[in-house]
Amino acid sequence: MSSLIPTSTVAEHADRDSCWIIVHSKVYDVTEFLDEHPGGSKIILKYAGKDATEAYEPIHPPNAILDNLPIEKHIGSVDPNTVVKVVKEITEEDKRRQALMDARPPLDEILNLHDFEAPKTVLTPKAWAYYSSASDDEITIRENRAAFQRVWFRPRILRDVTSVDWSTNILGCKSSLPVYISATALGKLGHPDGELNLTRAAAKHGIIQMIPTLASCSFDEIVDAAQPNQPLFLQLYVNKDREITKKYVQHAEKRGVRALFITVDAPQLGRREKDMRMKFVDDGAGAKVQEGQKDVKKDQGVARAISSFIDPSLSWKDIPWFRSITNMHIILKGVSTPEDAVLAYEAGCQGIVLSNHGGRQLDTARSGLENLIDIVAALKTKGPWPNPNFSVFVDGGVRRASDVLKAIALGASAVGIGRGFLYAFSSYGQEGVERAFDILRDEFEMNMRLLGARNIREVVPDMVDASALSAHAGLTPTDNLFNTTYQPLGLAQFKNAKL
Amino acid sequence: MSSLIPTSTVAEHADRDSCWIIVHSKVYDVTEFLDEHPGGSKIILKYAGKDATEAYEPIHPPNAILDNLPIEKHIGSVDPNTVVKVVKEITEEDKRRQALMDARPPLDEILNLHDFEAPKTVLTPKAWAYYSSASDDEITIRENRAAFQRVWFRPRILRDVTSVDWSTNILGCKSSLPVYISATALGKLGHPDGELNLTRAAAKHGIIQMIPTLASCSFDEIVDAAQPNQPLFLQLYVNKDREITKKYVQHAEKRGVRALFITVDAPQLGRREKDMRMKFVDDGAGAKVQEGQKDVKKDQGVARAISSFIDPSLSWKDIPWFRSITNMHIILKGVSTPEDAVLAYEAGCQGIVLSNHGGRQLDTARSGLENLIDIVAALKTKGPWPNPNFSVFVDGGVRRASDVLKAIALGASAVGIGRGFLYAFSSYGQEGVERAFDILRDEFEMNMRLLGARNIREVVPDMVDASALSAHAGLTPTDNLFNTTYQPLGLAQFKNAKL
Amino acid sequence: MSSLIPTSTVAEHADRDSCWIIVHSKVYDVTEFLDEHPGGSKIILKYAGKDATEAYEPIHPPNAILDNLPIEKHIGSVDPNTVVKVVKEITEEDKRRQALMDARPPLDEILNLHDFEAPKTVLTPKAWAYYSSASDDEITIRENRAAFQRVWFRPRILRDVTSVDWSTNILGCKSSLPVYISATALGKLGHPDGELNLTRAAAKHGIIQMIPTLASCSFDEIVDAAQPNQPLFLQLYVNKDREITKKYVQHAEKRGVRALFITVDAPQLGRREKDMRMKFVDDGAGAKVQEGQKDVKKDQGVARAISSFIDPSLSWKDIPWFRSITNMHIILKGVSTPEDAVLAYEAGCQGIVLSNHGGRQLDTARSGLENLIDIVAALKTKGPWPNPNFSVFVDGGVRRASDVLKAIALGASAVGIGRGFLYAFSSYGQEGVERAFDILRDEFEMNMRLLGARNIREVVPDMVDASALSAHAGLTPTDNLFNTTYQPLGLAQFKNAKL
Amino acid sequence: MSSLIPTSTVAEHADRDSCWIIVHSKVYDVTEFLDEHPGGSKIILKYAGKDATEAYEPIHPPNAILDNLPIEKHIGSVDPNTVVKVVKEITEEDKRRQALMDARPPLDEILNLHDFEAPKTVLTPKAWAYYSSASDDEITIRENRAAFQRVWFRPRILRDVTSVDWSTNILGCKSSLPVYISATALGKLGHPDGELNLTRAAAKHGIIQMIPTLASCSFDEIVDAAQPNQPLFLQLYVNKDREITKKYVQHAEKRGVRALFITVDAPQLGRREKDMRMKFVDDGAGAKVQEGQKDVKKDQGVARAISSFIDPSLSWKDIPWFRSITNMHIILKGVSTPEDAVLAYEAGCQGIVLSNHGGRQLDTARSGLENLIDIVAALKTKGPWPNPNFSVFVDGGVRRASDVLKAIALGASAVGIGRGFLYAFSSYGQEGVERAFDILRDEFEMNMRLLGARNIREVVPDMVDASALSAHAGLTPTDNLFNTTYQPLGLAQFKNAKL
Repeated sequence: MSSLIPTSTVAEHADRDSCWIIVHSKVYDVTEFLDEHPGGSKIILKYAGKDATEAYEPIHPPNAILDNLPIEKHIGSVDPNTVVKVVKEITEEDKRRQALMDARPPLDEILNLHDFEAPKTVLTPKAWAYYSSASDDEITIRENRAAFQRVWFRPRILRDVTSVDWSTNILGCKSSLPVYISATALGKLGHPDGELNLTRAAAKHGIIQMIPTLASCSFDEIVDAAQPNQPLFLQLYVNKDREITKKYVQHAEKRGVRALFITVDAPQLGRREKDMRMKFVDDGAGAKVQEGQKDVKKDQGVARAISSFIDPSLSWKDIPWFRSITNMHIILKGVSTPEDAVLAYEAGCQGIVLSNHGGRQLDTARSGLENLIDIVAALKTKGPWPNPNFSVFVDGGVRRASDVLKAIALGASAVGIGRGFLYAFSSYGQEGVERAFDILRDEFEMNMRLLGARNIREVVPDMVDASALSAHAGLTPTDNLFNTTYQPLGLAQFKNAKL
Repeated sequence: MSSLIPTSTVAEHADRDSCWIIVHSKVYDVTEFLDEHPGGSKIILKYAGKDATEAYEPIHPPNAILDNLPIEKHIGSVDPNTVVKVVKEITEEDKRRQALMDARPPLDEILNLHDFEAPKTVLTPKAWAYYSSASDDEITIRENRAAFQRVWFRPRILRDVTSVDWSTNILGCKSSLPVYISATALGKLGHPDGELNLTRAAAKHGIIQMIPTLASCSFDEIVDAAQPNQPLFLQLYVNKDREITKKYVQHAEKRGVRALFITVDAPQLGRREKDMRMKFVDDGAGAKVQEGQKDVKKDQGVARAISSFIDPSLSWKDIPWFRSITNMHIILKGVSTPEDAVLAYEAGCQGIVLSNHGGRQLDTARSGLENLIDIVAALKTKGPWPNPNFSVFVDGGVRRASDVLKAIALGASAVGIGRGFLYAFSSYGQEGVERAFDILRDEFEMNMRLLGARNIREVVPDMVDASALSAHAGLTPTDNLFNTTYQPLGLAQFKNAKL
Repeated sequence: MSSLIPTSTVAEHADRDSCWIIVHSKVYDVTEFLDEHPGGSKIILKYAGKDATEAYEPIHPPNAILDNLPIEKHIGSVDPNTVVKVVKEITEEDKRRQALMDARPPLDEILNLHDFEAPKTVLTPKAWAYYSSASDDEITIRENRAAFQRVWFRPRILRDVTSVDWSTNILGCKSSLPVYISATALGKLGHPDGELNLTRAAAKHGIIQMIPTLASCSFDEIVDAAQPNQPLFLQLYVNKDREITKKYVQHAEKRGVRALFITVDAPQLGRREKDMRMKFVDDGAGAKVQEGQKDVKKDQGVARAISSFIDPSLSWKDIPWFRSITNMHIILKGVSTPEDAVLAYEAGCQGIVLSNHGGRQLDTARSGLENLIDIVAALKTKGPWPNPNFSVFVDGGVRRASDVLKAIALGASAVGIGRGFLYAFSSYGQEGVERAFDILRDEFEMNMRLLGARNIREVVPDMVDASALSAHAGLTPTDNLFNTTYQPLGLAQFKNAKL
Repeated sequence: MSSLIPTSTVAEHADRDSCWIIVHSKVYDVTEFLDEHPGGSKIILKYAGKDATEAYEPIHPPNAILDNLPIEKHIGSVDPNTVVKVVKEITEEDKRRQALMDARPPLDEILNLHDFEAPKTVLTPKAWAYYSSASDDEITIRENRAAFQRVWFRPRILRDVTSVDWSTNILGCKSSLPVYISATALGKLGHPDGELNLTRAAAKHGIIQMIPTLASCSFDEIVDAAQPNQPLFLQLYVNKDREITKKYVQHAEKRGVRALFITVDAPQLGRREKDMRMKFVDDGAGAKVQEGQKDVKKDQGVARAISSFIDPSLSWKDIPWFRSITNMHIILKGVSTPEDAVLAYEAGCQGIVLSNHGGRQLDTARSGLENLIDIVAALKTKGPWPNPNFSVFVDGGVRRASDVLKAIALGASAVGIGRGFLYAFSSYGQEGVERAFDILRDEFEMNMRLLGARNIREVVPDMVDASALSAHAGLTPTDNLFNTTYQPLGLAQFKNAKL
């Protein structure tokens, strides 16, 4: 079917009985796919007989149609002569967001990584829901942050801290900060340049980016955007079809990627309710209680929609196979227990990431920082420490250089930051990411001086008090009656109520 | 007195001196009962000389009049020819609730068990008060929930979790989830079909329902609604008149009930203030401080009104008697200490439920989950573990499959859920309960995969960190003055205040 | 000076240079006392040359003028023939409070002791400030309450609890509850009958009242209001002039008081800021920063104003002297440490009250309940336990029978309640206090049944888990930036925003 | 260039190309300094060609221009004849603040040190930002306060506390309170008399002031304002140019300063975001995201702007040099660990201040109070205790005399208060500081009596329970869904909603 298809022909297939859509100038027959679409049929039907590219683009990885629609449903290419250039209508929502963009805080008023979330309203609701959501009650995502604040500093004084050096070496690659960019999916939801913002900023600042399997930009686009010899890591979701995975991994190695971070905490993606709720917003407020229709999986959200290929059978038995197909460092991302840390070490991996996937997988899982204590203790019984052949990384909840230093004091080699940089480019593009690096650099300089550590090796266990780290106490529930009757103390009052 | 009574005759007995009412077409003389009515005389007098069925129905168990009014006050049957079909007036409140029902979130937008409470406004205030209330300061009801969130997961990785199986066997009955429906009273307060919603949904999903003594539907109605061989349990409040209890238990066994859960934490029902306060709403805002009238027990609430038959003398001495009248499994529901757990084991019971009655009895009692630790430890010293002849169940505060898995990891055989399903059918009938099962099923699949457990037996103690479970710390009370003067940090500001 | 003084003569002394006032038909020259008045001169000057009885009455103990004004300033009696009966003007404030009184919740809607504080607005601001205030940051007053909620129950089951008995014996006196009325000052601030409300209610319910030194009613008025043989205790502030104290104590013994509770935690009354701030309200909003006037002690509040006679030199050396002047039981009220508990025991006292004066003295002192643990342990090393000759009482923060049972389980003989009863009569007079007793009785019945204790002796240490009692943790201060960016999870939404 | 310069000439240099300003009647060419100005160029350009004295004065230490502007840019003196006395325009903001000043609570209504912050609105936003800010997430500043409230009192009874004495000796100087005035910078931001308010109040009350290096008033102004023999301490930031430091220290010694407190926790000043954000307020809301301009360090805030001279190379090697240049006591201010405390002792210092710089340096550093426990334990192993030759001080978070007593009980010699006195004079000048002393005196009298300590030596470790001091627990994050559905208990309701 090589002849070009006029848009008028496409327009004839505009309902549930026969539904064609155009994406990137190709015509697809999605009639039979309507009920399978993880995002629901409604959103497709909105574009039935029309060009869906703009809606499709940011929330699907590059090969989504290829992976999900049989080749016989690829009808052909649209006839460009029939395409009427549509002047995109500017909606009220577009105007609102543009006004917000114009009113963003100037970049030099962004003083910390939290500030990049201040302009969260510049994100589309869908992007915000996808990026910010975590699983179940979102306990772990908050615990990740809180854990750092239960570790307290024991700073040393009167050391000559004229020059302090926070650069380090991560898996053989030089890094200007003891921090790498952790993989997060679907960057184009936040910014048209998607993950390239990170690649370009990382190049300028000597930072290592971990490329996500579920990037909005294709792997090669990202590598092409990198500078020669710019170190890159690759995050891997393992496909049920191992040949696809093998091809992907070996292609990455050939293109110079230095280390392979195999995600092991996601045999199935978590239920992220904020993300799932977005579905219903798209479907409009008119939806009704539809009895008997409950088998339609309407509630999957973006996360699950894009992840059906991930293989839940992945197991320790697969590690030797990975070793056989690549010479890259192999790191397991998502380890939580000393038992598994030791297994990873014994399986010949080069490291592990203590991670709970940013709180997006198993809720009420402990934080990576808390797990670090037990895991370092277990690894010390198995080999030298620090172990030149086995690195321990931590991610989750990091917002400050002081967080990073705490993890390092407790034994981490470096720390991954995901959402922090994601929000940075969503709000300010590449410059936002660079500003984030600058802020961290300033914070490292200050904190290391104040801590009395002149380089990363001097950040030692004695510099922190982690005794409260496991004290994630629950409270006695509030005594509402007493609190209602108790009248809080107040300050002295001004004499003029109008002031 | 077999002749039919015309409604006009009934209408002649319409005041405190002579008060007749009609319930389910029978005429009763309640004149002398007015002051004994646990719900107060006012509400009866409102229907003096009239048909009270509609008000009576949802808040009285089927045999309430039979149990409380001497037979000589049963005047006879109303003459149906004299009954004028009243067109029920639709009140503003009815309209408001109907509008709420119409606007309920569609069932597929209900993503978790909490969501069934979102439409709590569709309940009548009386139903909400009765269902949601707990005793005294409602500390324990909240602690029940909080306890689960003080247990943290230690998930294992790289196990082949392609297929995971969360079904189990509860007291010899197959269950598609490691969860049973715990008994809750007065289902018709929430939905006209009452407990039958549960029976029907349980049948379709392979779940076991525990029938409450204080159901709105009669025991036989419920059993009749069940499918052949559908496993059912029975919750028992023991009557002061043991013959009534014996008849009830033996009838249940004959009808195929598999296990008897004797409630042992309710020699007297708790004071539930939300429920008690509803009394005064019914009595109108015109009530005055009535001096000298304080012996009228106006403040009992629904809970105490329906429970006066319960025997506070029930003791360990009664257990052999139960053993003698039935071959059903005997389970003690409401055990809190290792001492009593061992006594139950030694008394030949088949199991115990670690429960505090959903926080409705002794306030500031510890949660079942916390008690589980000590109790399992004690039982291990008495026999094999897990013990095929003695099961430990937990209920209270369960909202997520992850809660269930934590209890199982710590030694529970299965977990009971009461309010969760109660709210599900109150808002959405049988379909709501089925949706609840679906949600739990999805959560079990996800959580077990993420935990690395392929079946219930693989959910082991090492998978949880319960070290913070007993850390129900109180706080240093807030420093109100400092908090008043302290100005919290803010984020970077947008430049246009109007945004 | 025995001739009667006409009011016209009094009216001539109406300014700072010569200031007379009438109180209870006596004329006093307070000119020189103006600057010494702990309540400030302004409030006196308001009544200069006039009758001040109504303002004076509720906030001064009966002998206040006698104690503070030299006899030569007692001018004489007012000539009754010259007194014009003034029709008391009803102010807006009076009307507001009367409307509140009329709208009070009916007494049978008062379900717990907290509810007596619901109508706190019926109190005058001065009364509320005096009664509710505590010292410094009011940490201890709240800790007193919170401490009870850090002790958890371990209820026993299957004991025949048909009849439960919560009566006990306190220092040889029968008490219908394991509770006594602790002394609180200035009852007339709350209700015109002051402490007599307590005396009368106690008589009817078999409760023991502790008479406060600083009662609004005189000691004899209270004893006169008691029934024959009604047991009474006496709380004692020791006067710098021991003869006054001796006379007072021996008079009390002669009138049949059973035990003497010597306050030992108040060598100086605490700074209670809510109370102190009331001064400025009285002085009007027009007050200015008065430079150079700072030696005028304007900020003492009611509490300090009435307590200047208390002897800060009171010490262990005085105990034998007390033993020598009375045969009443001697109890030290306000013990906080095992060291002092043992000293009291060795000094031959008959008991101690673990109390911090309701949080009104040393702030951030530990709660009596927490101190109970250490103190009981120390006393056990000194003699039999329970010790028939030495009782340990606790007060502070008690609102529920369950609180009392926790203290008893941990070793207390009985528990004192002060504010609870004070608010009860302030809002509802004697009937309020009786209602409070009824509520406690109901709560004891329920809690003892649910706990499995048939009498006070069966309330044993094993029934509570006090392991969290000392866990008064502070928090990691809130992460305001994270909390600002974190968007809390919400429930499913109704479809119609107007609902 | 000694001839006088007319203002008209200055006015010709009024833009970025040539920018002159007048400060204290001197003319400076700041053209080349514009981009280096830590406060940004914009604020200078506002005064280009004009007199900037009023804006300059409060936020620059006396020698700021001298230190930063090369001598050749000092153009000369302005011709006084050309200066037109400008009638200062009274802005709306001036009026608002004046109205606030007029409405301040009268000084005798200030009951505690917090109250001095009630009128914080009388401060300029810049002053408030500079004074109140702390570093990063401001965790430590709040922890400093909270730590005191995790230490609980164990008061002793029945000691004759007629006379209590809270005076003490600090480094050989008599002090009427166990408290000294800790150094805080830039006093004129808060009050035109700046630090002199402290000097004068200290003189009247027998309190010791620590003079800050970064005072708004010059060192000599302060010493000149002191009374003969009024003891003074000196806080020292060590200059990169040691000769400047030597001159400063030796001058101080010559002028009679008793002890030198060398700040050792500030090799670089902390990032204080509230302070930093003030920059943008000054620059106006019109600022835009200025691409490519990110190297302009606009975000330094006042703190960093004034501190560039501080030497980050200061180390233990410098201590002997200090010993060689002065005979004053040498105290290290900012010690946090037992290791460093012992090093200080062994280096021959006379004491240490356990301080985290009021939370303004390393955030999540532990509080001085918490460090006190370990540090006293370590020092006890090195010499006699208390050690007459080595004093331990604490500062940070102190608001109450009870806080001071806790520190003393745990081993401190005395306690420093900074912000408390700073706010006192900012709101009320010298009289405010005196009122603060009075309040503390009252609190010491009360607390020592209630504690049973007659003098500072009797304030012993047994009087406090510090077991919860290290329990800075984190919480299980809130369960937002449960909290949304849970309906808090309420009190009994009044019958008339209008009340």
